[in-house]
Amino acid sequence: MSRIILRNCPHRVLQVSLRRNANVRGFAAAAATSFDWEDPLLAKTLLTEEEVAVGETAERYCQERLLPRVLQAYRDEDYDSKILREMGELGLLGATIQGYGCAGVSTVAGGLITRAVERVDSGYRSGMSVQSSLVMGGIHEFGSAELKERLLPGMARGEILGAFGLTEPNHGSDPGSMETVARRHPQKTGVYLLSGAKTWITNSPIADVLLVWAKLEETGKIRGFVVERKDCPAGTLETPAIKNKNGLRASITGMIQLDNCPVREENMFPEVEGLKGPFSCLNSARYGIALGTMGALEDCIARARTYALERKQFKGNPLAKYQLVQKKLADAVTDATYGTLAAIQVGRLKDEGKATPEMISLIKRQNCDKALHNARVLQEIFGGNAVSDEYGIGRHVANLYVTQTYEGQSDIHSLILGRAITGVQAFA
Amino acid sequence: MSRIILRNCPHRVLQVSLRRNANVRGFAAAAATSFDWEDPLLAKTLLTEEEVAVGETAERYCQERLLPRVLQAYRDEDYDSKILREMGELGLLGATIQGYGCAGVSTVAGGLITRAVERVDSGYRSGMSVQSSLVMGGIHEFGSAELKERLLPGMARGEILGAFGLTEPNHGSDPGSMETVARRHPQKTGVYLLSGAKTWITNSPIADVLLVWAKLEETGKIRGFVVERKDCPAGTLETPAIKNKNGLRASITGMIQLDNCPVREENMFPEVEGLKGPFSCLNSARYGIALGTMGALEDCIARARTYALERKQFKGNPLAKYQLVQKKLADAVTDATYGTLAAIQVGRLKDEGKATPEMISLIKRQNCDKALHNARVLQEIFGGNAVSDEYGIGRHVANLYVTQTYEGQSDIHSLILGRAITGVQAFA
Amino acid sequence: MSRIILRNCPHRVLQVSLRRNANVRGFAAAAATSFDWEDPLLAKTLLTEEEVAVGETAERYCQERLLPRVLQAYRDEDYDSKILREMGELGLLGATIQGYGCAGVSTVAGGLITRAVERVDSGYRSGMSVQSSLVMGGIHEFGSAELKERLLPGMARGEILGAFGLTEPNHGSDPGSMETVARRHPQKTGVYLLSGAKTWITNSPIADVLLVWAKLEETGKIRGFVVERKDCPAGTLETPAIKNKNGLRASITGMIQLDNCPVREENMFPEVEGLKGPFSCLNSARYGIALGTMGALEDCIARARTYALERKQFKGNPLAKYQLVQKKLADAVTDATYGTLAAIQVGRLKDEGKATPEMISLIKRQNCDKALHNARVLQEIFGGNAVSDEYGIGRHVANLYVTQTYEGQSDIHSLILGRAITGVQAFA
Amino acid sequence: MSRIILRNCPHRVLQVSLRRNANVRGFAAAAATSFDWEDPLLAKTLLTEEEVAVGETAERYCQERLLPRVLQAYRDEDYDSKILREMGELGLLGATIQGYGCAGVSTVAGGLITRAVERVDSGYRSGMSVQSSLVMGGIHEFGSAELKERLLPGMARGEILGAFGLTEPNHGSDPGSMETVARRHPQKTGVYLLSGAKTWITNSPIADVLLVWAKLEETGKIRGFVVERKDCPAGTLETPAIKNKNGLRASITGMIQLDNCPVREENMFPEVEGLKGPFSCLNSARYGIALGTMGALEDCIARARTYALERKQFKGNPLAKYQLVQKKLADAVTDATYGTLAAIQVGRLKDEGKATPEMISLIKRQNCDKALHNARVLQEIFGGNAVSDEYGIGRHVANLYVTQTYEGQSDIHSLILGRAITGVQAFA
Repeated sequence: MSRIILRNCPHRVLQVSLRRNANVRGFAAAAATSFDWEDPLLAKTLLTEEEVAVGETAERYCQERLLPRVLQAYRDEDYDSKILREMGELGLLGATIQGYGCAGVSTVAGGLITRAVERVDSGYRSGMSVQSSLVMGGIHEFGSAELKERLLPGMARGEILGAFGLTEPNHGSDPGSMETVARRHPQKTGVYLLSGAKTWITNSPIADVLLVWAKLEETGKIRGFVVERKDCPAGTLETPAIKNKNGLRASITGMIQLDNCPVREENMFPEVEGLKGPFSCLNSARYGIALGTMGALEDCIARARTYALERKQFKGNPLAKYQLVQKKLADAVTDATYGTLAAIQVGRLKDEGKATPEMISLIKRQNCDKALHNARVLQEIFGGNAVSDEYGIGRHVANLYVTQTYEGQSDIHSLILGRAITGVQAFA
Repeated sequence: MSRIILRNCPHRVLQVSLRRNANVRGFAAAAATSFDWEDPLLAKTLLTEEEVAVGETAERYCQERLLPRVLQAYRDEDYDSKILREMGELGLLGATIQGYGCAGVSTVAGGLITRAVERVDSGYRSGMSVQSSLVMGGIHEFGSAELKERLLPGMARGEILGAFGLTEPNHGSDPGSMETVARRHPQKTGVYLLSGAKTWITNSPIADVLLVWAKLEETGKIRGFVVERKDCPAGTLETPAIKNKNGLRASITGMIQLDNCPVREENMFPEVEGLKGPFSCLNSARYGIALGTMGALEDCIARARTYALERKQFKGNPLAKYQLVQKKLADAVTDATYGTLAAIQVGRLKDEGKATPEMISLIKRQNCDKALHNARVLQEIFGGNAVSDEYGIGRHVANLYVTQTYEGQSDIHSLILGRAITGVQAFA
Repeated sequence: MSRIILRNCPHRVLQVSLRRNANVRGFAAAAATSFDWEDPLLAKTLLTEEEVAVGETAERYCQERLLPRVLQAYRDEDYDSKILREMGELGLLGATIQGYGCAGVSTVAGGLITRAVERVDSGYRSGMSVQSSLVMGGIHEFGSAELKERLLPGMARGEILGAFGLTEPNHGSDPGSMETVARRHPQKTGVYLLSGAKTWITNSPIADVLLVWAKLEETGKIRGFVVERKDCPAGTLETPAIKNKNGLRASITGMIQLDNCPVREENMFPEVEGLKGPFSCLNSARYGIALGTMGALEDCIARARTYALERKQFKGNPLAKYQLVQKKLADAVTDATYGTLAAIQVGRLKDEGKATPEMISLIKRQNCDKALHNARVLQEIFGGNAVSDEYGIGRHVANLYVTQTYEGQSDIHSLILGRAITGVQAFA
Repeated sequence: MSRIILRNCPHRVLQVSLRRNANVRGFAAAAATSFDWEDPLLAKTLLTEEEVAVGETAERYCQERLLPRVLQAYRDEDYDSKILREMGELGLLGATIQGYGCAGVSTVAGGLITRAVERVDSGYRSGMSVQSSLVMGGIHEFGSAELKERLLPGMARGEILGAFGLTEPNHGSDPGSMETVARRHPQKTGVYLLSGAKTWITNSPIADVLLVWAKLEETGKIRGFVVERKDCPAGTLETPAIKNKNGLRASITGMIQLDNCPVREENMFPEVEGLKGPFSCLNSARYGIALGTMGALEDCIARARTYALERKQFKGNPLAKYQLVQKKLADAVTDATYGTLAAIQVGRLKDEGKATPEMISLIKRQNCDKALHNARVLQEIFGGNAVSDEYGIGRHVANLYVTQTYEGQSDIHSLILGRAITGVQAFA
């Protein structure tokens, strides 16, 4: 297993060594002038050398270390929290952040990491997205200098684990109606008491720090609080796991139950108020999903293609010879490459300060929708065999349903786009 | 729990008592002249009184006895083999067979039973379909008089359990290429030795009798053999379970491994040769699937509708108020009622001797496709909550994928229909 | 050309003679036990002998007399008003009405007539629907005895032509907001003056009587007025044609412009108020559309199938051998037969008084949507050749778009259904 | 009307002047950091200054000069051959060719021209594509130096009009089976006699030079011949127009009928043999279609958005407020921007010599399919009003069907892609 650490890696060396490793997925292998079904429109020509290297480091780790774990983890609904530490060692966490021990790579490079992870499993990517984009990203953007210095380096190493508490049992698509509240402590100055419940919180059962969004009683405005588990008196913070999930079973999900949980004022984000804070975090995470789901789709394509070539029916013809199979593959390959190009473009715009939230909505919605749709269609190629979890395709299908619904359900993003296009809002 | 036995039930009494039972699903409750979302085109007006009563008996059993079991069974990938005995007590097994202790009801009534069972779970319906249509149906149609007398009454009571062995590891959509072979015993007259492997066999691990299709060595023709487990010497028959399925987890699935397994000549179907035998069995089972999947879809509709009415977002509006949600419901309701009407029509034609296998292909394909498609679309209404198995919708989605692939994968039925429409075959 | 008149036809004789006529479309020809791609689920077994005969009369007329005219009529955007007279001679107009010289056949028989006409062209069917369902139906249901006696017999013969004025330039899906108004004549007792404009009115330029819906000034309630052109002073009624249509070019469409047009009180429907009146008329017309569009779809199937069998590409294989072509045909055939069965069921319910408007919405929406969708998919089989109007498929595609939008645009029907399913309205 | 000629235009000046012109479509107007529904992912940031200027020149010409003509031309099925001369004056013809009086712009710039033209009408774009890509491109790539010098400058000015003869009545998707033949003249050295028929040939009735592909009798190999109408003896070349088309009515289409038509050897492409020649020409044209259809789709979006904002129904709400309408717009906008990004990427690869024909197949197929699909869905927003040709949407829908079928029908491209993905061919 590679010990190369991203945040100070000599990329050129890495790249060469990777190309020699025949066992690793041929990420950039095909000659530029033949058709490469893994990268049909040569999206890789849009990447910098550094980005290619980051992608290859991530792909190698994921294929070598994550892939062998995922089948059993998904069966057992188990998440190995060492994974985040391993990712931290490679510099994959919070990779787009400058400083604080983070790699400081481009938005696109960050997306290539999520793509590599989600090529294995959307649950693994979810665990990483929460750590990187939602929590580290949130603290980096909105936290005080002290908070950043204190938490980000450990989070970057995967030693401090984070969770992001926005969604509530009765408020999914509509977080503005949240009921979790922060009151000033009646006695202790500079302390808030948080009460309320959050649900569907990735990593909550294992998190050391929980970025919780709550309404400040005195203003009625939403504020962000970094709850540190080690500081919570018994009975004020519970994070029970949610079990028996239909998807994302290789990630861990839970609730956050706060009962007058004390949080120091220094752990409240000093300036940001309202939905701007959580939406900004979501924006980064959604970007990672947009490119990440393309990894899951590409893995479905690769698996379906292999199956179609190996499975023979009717006079020994491979399934790949059937027109109905070829069309499914052609459609999926097209959507994967279109989605990748769009995500790269938005990544560039993000780094140039030109990306709007609606652009992220657009690629998050489309890429999740298309990844899910095509994964389902490709699953048909496996016929009844897809029911066996060994083929992996059913796992991707189940996972991708979840990606379509979280961080903005698809229809909600349609209405966000509709509003941006027409100037008229249609939510209610 | 009702002890009323179908094969001699006083239907009128049953019907009245059901209507008084407010806890039971309102199967036939709505006044005829208002719009009933559970039966929008009043398919029930096409049913006889007896059929309505059969349907209600089945619905009551399924809602009262199966529904409470399914969540845990699906989680644990466990099948309670008492279920078939309970169904047997109520006369639900082999219900369309005349005599041998069977109820002798119409094809449509048989379909109403599968619909009731599949409203709870497609896996439960699969377990029953194998017993009723594939094995009992096969023995009834092709078995010797002795075999029928000996096996059918016990099977009708659910005391003898059956499995149907057609699909092989390398031959799914193309059973004509099967490799399982039956050779004459070199010493014992009137005995065949079966060798080969079958896979994805519902009920095989718990089956007492296994209807196995094999090529007779001397003719190269496919023949049907009823393998009785109690008569198989050790090591000649193994039926290991297949675990870790993505769907139909509440049914039990396994392989059939035959190693010179001796079967008496009396247990070979005397006349039927080639694929005509298994295809005839499949034809009946497929009919049951066509109406059965409408039950699963109807349950998805009912669950999604309830969720949409109860879940409030954005200013307290129920999801049901959103146009995008209403369209999903309207589409699903339409497909459910169209599929039901078509299945009833084919059931009538079947009883009149006018149904062709292509008609069954047509309704099996369409109803499975539409049940799956709409279940997935309705699942979106639940957003992230669908990931919790408590809502049931994810289970239906996963199950319905399997129904689309078994007993003729959807694309294969498309080509069967294409051939019937054009006279040209396009399989290879 | 057949001179047999429907309203007193000896059906048995007709039926026999038709079967001998090899040139007529094999409406009921296939033996019951083989797969008939023109009627895959044997919907014809649900018809009475009389209904079969009515259908055959209509089919014969349409194939013999309408089909030869339609290509040129569509090119020239011309409607031959003799068509309604010809239909009248055969008893095809207002056929479901009892008395007044009408045939008094079942709702399903009426639908078989629309299906026969729309098999040729949706525009021809539109012209007939307006006469039969919207105007004759409206007068029959709501008109005074005098009005019925005076107008219906001539309309049944196609000597008096009708148009139905509901839609206004600014009020399509929302007729309740109509602006056309009826004021009492300031001097003449028993006379109303109508003012306003109606648009997209089939047959308006050639109509003798125009059923116009207007708001009665004194009550603000919508009322129905039968405007007789012959009684309108110059300048009070104009009905200019709308030209350059993209579809339904073989029907004639226009506006109705009323400027203080005097109508006698006897020509106002005496009792019905509000939208109940026009919606009731639309209900009947929509039923005809639901079965009618299945005729257009069936014609697309027949044309595409013929083309696919005759057109050879790549080594002389007919297109029909391609899997992608077979799937298109299989899908279309399935939707056609499902739509037909559903429409027959609703027709039966209508005659039994059990049909609700939502049922009609359901089949109108679904059958128009599916006819249009499949027509478009089948069009692909023709490749570039579909651009030639000689193949007819492009005409059906263009027509079917219109059927999807008129008498309730598809999305509006989705919301009508959504409201019926959930009890919550989502129109605005 | 701008007289600025592309091939020597001072782009910077042009650009500034355009921005002052408020009546011209705001091609590059939006500030970079707000969401621009006309360019949601800021594809324009990928363009060079020159490309932006070329696009603006083309857009201005098309909006100012073509748009006012198209409604009547489409009604009358008439093509004004002055259009090509006007385009020639602006340097829009053969714009990607270096030398010979051509502008020598990038592939993407060439695509921006087709997009501008197709924003008005696909037929106008077809007429230009034939001239630019198929004929000028073919002569430029394969013709002798003499032929290039003699023909290209006049073609670039639009004074010599071209047509491209590949498709035959019986050979559409399979041109390798063509029947047109070139025989050596029995007497005259250096002369070939061409015989055969080509159909669906854009511009053939008005063409001065016809690039005809024929099988050379002596080798059986396909060769390209530039037939010059002025040199053809009477009766050897006929180019009758095909009328009554369902789409592309603003372009002129015809046949090419050759009866021992003499062509000098110098007019035969000297080296290229087989399908490589025509496929190379098609490759360039397909690229133009891929970006061109995005223009048509963008125009549909703009028209639908305007309609949705202006049309009020139900309590005065604009249609734009309806969720079902917003989703249609969001989907279309997404597909337009994805398709544009993909086409730009392939354009860049083409100029770098990295584009394969499969890449062109991929974007041609996807962009045509999506343009057509979304145009149809957007059409629904117009309800019945779309039937009036004044709204333009029906024209785009009809045109886009044709683009989906020509230069490789969509399914054929699916199989080309399927072959490239799997290595297995499935054409027959």
